[in-house]
Amino acid sequence: MQNPPAAAGMAFAEIDTPALVIDLDAFERNLGKMADMTAAAGVRLRPHAKTHKSAMIARLQMEHGAVGVCCQKVSEAEALVKDGVPDVLISNEIAGRAKIERLAALAKQARIAVCVDDADNVDEIAAAAEKFDVTIPVLVEIDVGGNRCGVVPGEPALRLAAKIARSNLLRFGGLQAYHGSAQHLRTYDERRDAIARTVDLTKQTVDLLKREGLDCETVGGAGTGTFEFEAGSRVFNEIQAGSYIFMDADYARNRKADGLSNDQFEHALFVLTTVMSHPSDARAVVDAGHKSASVDSGPPEPFRRPGIVYRRPSDEHGVLLSEGGALPRRGEKILLVPGHCDPTVNLYDWYVCVRGMQGSSPVVEALWPVTARGAAQ
Amino acid sequence: MQNPPAAAGMAFAEIDTPALVIDLDAFERNLGKMADMTAAAGVRLRPHAKTHKSAMIARLQMEHGAVGVCCQKVSEAEALVKDGVPDVLISNEIAGRAKIERLAALAKQARIAVCVDDADNVDEIAAAAEKFDVTIPVLVEIDVGGNRCGVVPGEPALRLAAKIARSNLLRFGGLQAYHGSAQHLRTYDERRDAIARTVDLTKQTVDLLKREGLDCETVGGAGTGTFEFEAGSRVFNEIQAGSYIFMDADYARNRKADGLSNDQFEHALFVLTTVMSHPSDARAVVDAGHKSASVDSGPPEPFRRPGIVYRRPSDEHGVLLSEGGALPRRGEKILLVPGHCDPTVNLYDWYVCVRGMQGSSPVVEALWPVTARGAAQ
Repeated sequence: MQNPPAAAGMAFAEIDTPALVIDLDAFERNLGKMADMTAAAGVRLRPHAKTHKSAMIARLQMEHGAVGVCCQKVSEAEALVKDGVPDVLISNEIAGRAKIERLAALAKQARIAVCVDDADNVDEIAAAAEKFDVTIPVLVEIDVGGNRCGVVPGEPALRLAAKIARSNLLRFGGLQAYHGSAQHLRTYDERRDAIARTVDLTKQTVDLLKREGLDCETVGGAGTGTFEFEAGSRVFNEIQAGSYIFMDADYARNRKADGLSNDQFEHALFVLTTVMSHPSDARAVVDAGHKSASVDSGPPEPFRRPGIVYRRPSDEHGVLLSEGGALPRRGEKILLVPGHCDPTVNLYDWYVCVRGMQGSSPVVEALWPVTARGAAQ
Repeated sequence: MQNPPAAAGMAFAEIDTPALVIDLDAFERNLGKMADMTAAAGVRLRPHAKTHKSAMIARLQMEHGAVGVCCQKVSEAEALVKDGVPDVLISNEIAGRAKIERLAALAKQARIAVCVDDADNVDEIAAAAEKFDVTIPVLVEIDVGGNRCGVVPGEPALRLAAKIARSNLLRFGGLQAYHGSAQHLRTYDERRDAIARTVDLTKQTVDLLKREGLDCETVGGAGTGTFEFEAGSRVFNEIQAGSYIFMDADYARNRKADGLSNDQFEHALFVLTTVMSHPSDARAVVDAGHKSASVDSGPPEPFRRPGIVYRRPSDEHGVLLSEGGALPRRGEKILLVPGHCDPTVNLYDWYVCVRGMQGSSPVVEALWPVTARGAAQ
């Protein structure tokens, strides 16, 4: 684990770089806004912790009404539970006896649910539940358009749900119905139409199960790009959005119904970087490259620096080019909005939490560990 | 820091996933081959440790004749020096007083050199050297085609070298002349021609400095894609290749003079992943996504599994599609060759070192920490 690049009480200007910075004011507004919106829609909020991997942030989300969090991996859940998070849905399939037994062991310490899309996997989880003397809620994942994991909605989901319900060691927990690729469809109409189909497929499955006596305690899914559609569907009752807490450059490229850039939530996460070379008028080179900001959803973007773009990242460098704006000087620090927050967060051991960041004298208020950094198993 | 996904003595089949695996036999052949090739060319080898971030591997490279290693960041050098690496060139510019003072402090514990491309930066390093009572060798970085950091070759390099040489606190260490983008030019002729120009620019600068009484102790650069050209140039005397030790999928796309795929070094680094969902005949889903394998140089590639491709990575998933080959079953583990080794390594806390990997009973021989994981500052 690296030393933190700052200390509480330090002036913003003294933070070492590259650093992962939270604008606490914007973060807290995002935290409250999603809590309010889901409460107003009458649905539960179970934010995805794969975005932040932080026990501190998970606890704050629960203090604001979230019923728990989602994780993708057993080791991620273990790290959060160890640091006090009491309720985790692993919104993913878990393969392999050793890992499933870790899941069952964790269920002795916290409320742990998991997803399946395979009948043999149900047997494996039941065996682990027996060995560790726990009852594990199991959700059936259905493929509602994401074309990744999940059984076909309808009869295949029914067969799997019935198998879970027959087990004395498991509890049928409902449906996992997440449409990942819909989150990043750029226009409002595209996202609305994709989720309309997701809701249809999910409703048909919920109704089929109900006719067979299987109630879905949880019908969960949705992300930051589409959650309003699922929340208003009267089919989904649990929203799993994660990125809203930080808002990355990719989500900001989504368009609202009016065609404007999505500004529902504020950018609250940044990579702070220093210009370490300015070898010509044409370019400045910063100290944040692939190992400090992921580029799988496009490069990071300079924050409130119009006319400057970040290009040609290499492992430890990024090149700032002018598109009309003045390039920063050597030694100057600038903020980048990550292209994609989740894999960027996973590169860092610490969040540097800054208060008053948009004011005249921002100060480091706290350092939060990225609790589950690297917990990919 | 995560728990290791295996233990020494464990059978290969028991390694938890995703895991970063070294094929020790292939690794050792790469280690020896580069040592032999640079020795035969009469040049020094200073491998780049940004690839592996491992003190163990750095020490093995030095046991095989390397004069030291390169790092890109001060914190990276600190981590390696702490674990016993005695000689590090920071092949990069360092900005900011606090960080430059850390560099000078480190120079009390090991031989530490650094690069500059700015006159003010020379003054900053001299001030830190005075404060910590050390003499720091400083190399002038010249832009030999990479179009990133570095001053223009010729007169601008001379002015900077002369300024360094005038300082009582610094020592002029020579030239840093790395052409990064040439490493990935696909054809042999493209790489040869790019480095011919790099060598010309470097030689002109070396000769100019010599006429002014400034000898270049080190003329360094080169990477895994081009090192044979620099090594045979009679201008370069220090080779900084890094990726050769692991060989990623991107380097394997380079073509040799005969037009065939570059097989000079062997793939020795892998991401081991498990099929955690197999929801349809058309696809299998593995547990390694963006957080387990970087995609900045293309997706990882299934190793020796012709007819299967890895596509559509998301944060914790990758989709295996068939292009004629049989997809692996749910629960099966497969090896992926990383698209780009450096940022992939930086995602992991541990190397799982396997002996006999191509044989019938591979076994975990050792766990090596990724010493400088996350050391980006």
